Amino acid sequence: MSEQKGNKKMVDAITPMEEDFAKWYTDIVKKAELMDYTNVRGCMVIQPYGFAIWENIQRILDTEFKELGHENISLPLFIPESLLQKEKDHVEGFAPEVAWVTQCGDEVLQERMCVRPTSETLFCDYYAKVIHSYRDLPMLYNQWCSVVRWEKTTRPFLRSVEFHWQEGHTMHETAQDAMAETEQMLNVYAGFCENQLAIPVIKGRKTDKEKFSGAEATYTIEAMMHDGKALQSGTSHYFGDGFAKAFDITFQDRENKPSHPFQTSWGMSTRIIGGIIMTHGDNNGLVLPPAIAPIQVIIVPIAQHKEGVLDKAYALRDCLKKTFRVKIDDSSEQSPGWKFAQYEMKGVPLRLEIGPKDIEQNQCVLVRRHDREKIFVSLDHLEEAIAEQLEAVRKGIYEKALKRRQEMTYTASAFDEMKDIAENKPGFIKAMWCGDLACEERIKEEAGLSSRCIPFEQEQIADTCVCCGKPAKSMVYWGKSY
Amino acid sequence: MSEQKGNKKMVDAITPMEEDFAKWYTDIVKKAELMDYTNVRGCMVIQPYGFAIWENIQRILDTEFKELGHENISLPLFIPESLLQKEKDHVEGFAPEVAWVTQCGDEVLQERMCVRPTSETLFCDYYAKVIHSYRDLPMLYNQWCSVVRWEKTTRPFLRSVEFHWQEGHTMHETAQDAMAETEQMLNVYAGFCENQLAIPVIKGRKTDKEKFSGAEATYTIEAMMHDGKALQSGTSHYFGDGFAKAFDITFQDRENKPSHPFQTSWGMSTRIIGGIIMTHGDNNGLVLPPAIAPIQVIIVPIAQHKEGVLDKAYALRDCLKKTFRVKIDDSSEQSPGWKFAQYEMKGVPLRLEIGPKDIEQNQCVLVRRHDREKIFVSLDHLEEAIAEQLEAVRKGIYEKALKRRQEMTYTASAFDEMKDIAENKPGFIKAMWCGDLACEERIKEEAGLSSRCIPFEQEQIADTCVCCGKPAKSMVYWGKSY
Repeated sequence: MSEQKGNKKMVDAITPMEEDFAKWYTDIVKKAELMDYTNVRGCMVIQPYGFAIWENIQRILDTEFKELGHENISLPLFIPESLLQKEKDHVEGFAPEVAWVTQCGDEVLQERMCVRPTSETLFCDYYAKVIHSYRDLPMLYNQWCSVVRWEKTTRPFLRSVEFHWQEGHTMHETAQDAMAETEQMLNVYAGFCENQLAIPVIKGRKTDKEKFSGAEATYTIEAMMHDGKALQSGTSHYFGDGFAKAFDITFQDRENKPSHPFQTSWGMSTRIIGGIIMTHGDNNGLVLPPAIAPIQVIIVPIAQHKEGVLDKAYALRDCLKKTFRVKIDDSSEQSPGWKFAQYEMKGVPLRLEIGPKDIEQNQCVLVRRHDREKIFVSLDHLEEAIAEQLEAVRKGIYEKALKRRQEMTYTASAFDEMKDIAENKPGFIKAMWCGDLACEERIKEEAGLSSRCIPFEQEQIADTCVCCGKPAKSMVYWGKSY
Repeated sequence: MSEQKGNKKMVDAITPMEEDFAKWYTDIVKKAELMDYTNVRGCMVIQPYGFAIWENIQRILDTEFKELGHENISLPLFIPESLLQKEKDHVEGFAPEVAWVTQCGDEVLQERMCVRPTSETLFCDYYAKVIHSYRDLPMLYNQWCSVVRWEKTTRPFLRSVEFHWQEGHTMHETAQDAMAETEQMLNVYAGFCENQLAIPVIKGRKTDKEKFSGAEATYTIEAMMHDGKALQSGTSHYFGDGFAKAFDITFQDRENKPSHPFQTSWGMSTRIIGGIIMTHGDNNGLVLPPAIAPIQVIIVPIAQHKEGVLDKAYALRDCLKKTFRVKIDDSSEQSPGWKFAQYEMKGVPLRLEIGPKDIEQNQCVLVRRHDREKIFVSLDHLEEAIAEQLEAVRKGIYEKALKRRQEMTYTASAFDEMKDIAENKPGFIKAMWCGDLACEERIKEEAGLSSRCIPFEQEQIADTCVCCGKPAKSMVYWGKSY
């Protein structure tokens, strides 16, 4: 009974996603204590529980980056205006949204500096100093930091003036090497999303309209959220030698001739936490993939006033904490039912219940967050059972998300059909495209859809462009996006 | 022979510290590839090898902070001017050296914002929102980030416009709790310096003149560098409820009455890397304490063209890398002698040499960086031997530094004596002080010495103030500082 009441009370607190998806999202962010607003325009506090998720993401990615030979580095927070202006497309893309420092103490600066919106220009300035010979290549750097873009409207994790990310920046001897790096890092992101975050993604290339300012090619992974909208979840850019020329970066090649190196950059940000919420969350709150959950197992003692219960629960905690991120909630002020609802809200993948009867039978109960499946487990095989169930959670939420994406992905071969789907069915639309900007703009204007990517896995849906009817060049995923 | 030549070549590249200490320092920073200058005024690149040192420092401290119950959090980069101005002493201390953002894109801001020089005001703004009851206390937060202070003259690690640090910020129910936290965190820093970095430190309290802007008390650890100058290596501040009052932070106490909480903050920065260099380095380059060395053991194969040598070296590397941070230099372009000098420059604590004769005898040679001691070790006990030798390095460099500090610490009971020592003998001077600002300022002006701290371990050197002759209140460490 008290369990039911407790549950009810907590659940009432969230707006159901069917009622108001945006409100459901911010309710979770707020009630799971991930992030909070501040008095600084567009900037947020990432609270401890939210930051612990980011730290887990960082640890996994950082290990992968290093295994692939990347090194961490730290470049300045500021970019002098003249440096930002060196690459034309790049400055045009970023200048409208940077924060300018014009005064320091009492000193008015002769040249203003912006707070970095991204660090290509700083890296190029550094590369020009340190790259001399082909023997110095490749240079494989990464930086964990925050960047600032003056966004007009902001939403927790999805869009904020300051956000955290990692930005990888590499330089290579040949175009082929740089292209291989661009692809490799997109695959790292895709593998991370699918295997660790249980978020299915579509890998592809951005159209010229949607690519990064100054890049020759932008690769992207696109994920579908609960509401059918797309979230660009990670990008990897190939720059050719454009920046290298603008910044006069040269090296002596194997024939002893001066040559420009080829460049990449790639990034994943705290935005992905928004993606986790909107992919896996439900009307009871957050659902976290085990790999990045700050708490993987929450132990809730039942009838904890009875002799031996708390002792047993502590003993389990001490034993499990060597392998899992485990916490016990032994507060006597709250009922088990309240605790159940609380840790469901926080998205903890597994709950472990242990009471007097369980102890008698040398067992405990595991309850999976995402489907509330209850499993009775012998304490003799608890560790294996937990490892199995965590894997079952990962697989379960991945498959759920994949099924949803499949069900909400449509194909259109005529423009009217496309507009009709766009108006009535949230999701992705696969349709052919001639490659012309004019059609892409018309699709945006009339159907409200932007190109998400030209997927690496192409399908031949039709022979002609969905918009103009001219011969099609490629199949494109279209959608509404965050 | 080739070893001698190689060594010679590298060593020549550093200015001896006896000749020009400042140049010796920057030579090491540059040649060990720790940090480099940029075109951004006062901002530097922390290069991969330097940043790896910082990552090791972060990992050790972060683990300790978390074990003591602290949680990581992320607050905004910007502080609106009105927020900075809420605490009078604080704004007076920091306003002259902050960087002001006045424009974003095309929009001129109605209220300018500074880039955080430290985050007390932001934390207080947040605390005011989230602290309601004594049950919410203590709040134990920490943040890893970079901050900006517009310094006129800068030096790598020691003083730069942007620097990395951690800033702990906590709120407590009682003054006693907050005071205990302030002391605890100073002890964490002191323990870290002494046990991990092998840097002996003096723990004490700053005089009112030297304390943090807005703090009631600042505790500090002071280390002595090679040249006898002091480096403030970590600080822990007690704020009382001053900020809490200014920011209107209240909680319902156990008697249900509104009450102000008591606050602390504490920080350690990348500055400590400068401290490591200037405590342990020598004329062959850097000497790194094993706990934070990016490479703990460098394997240099001898006569590596001979059959079996490289295979054996790789096998050792693969076996050792489970326990130690180990690297092999198998380049055939450089001689062993060049490699010896190179990794001495980089401060790698242990070198492992293995050649055909060693393999025959089932042994290898370990060479300690700090004293060049050679140890022949059976391959059957290699792991234990390395662990032992790394500990020997730690102990060896700690004792060397402690002995130096002891030899370069003087006492003075008369002002002439103090001035004479200050002029002729670099180091610390212990002398009594009446507690008056006037004497502190006169000592600064006439002897060029600032108060480093009022050490917790007091000695009774004399009864009267070294400056004015009035009754003394406490013994103070005086010195020149970075």
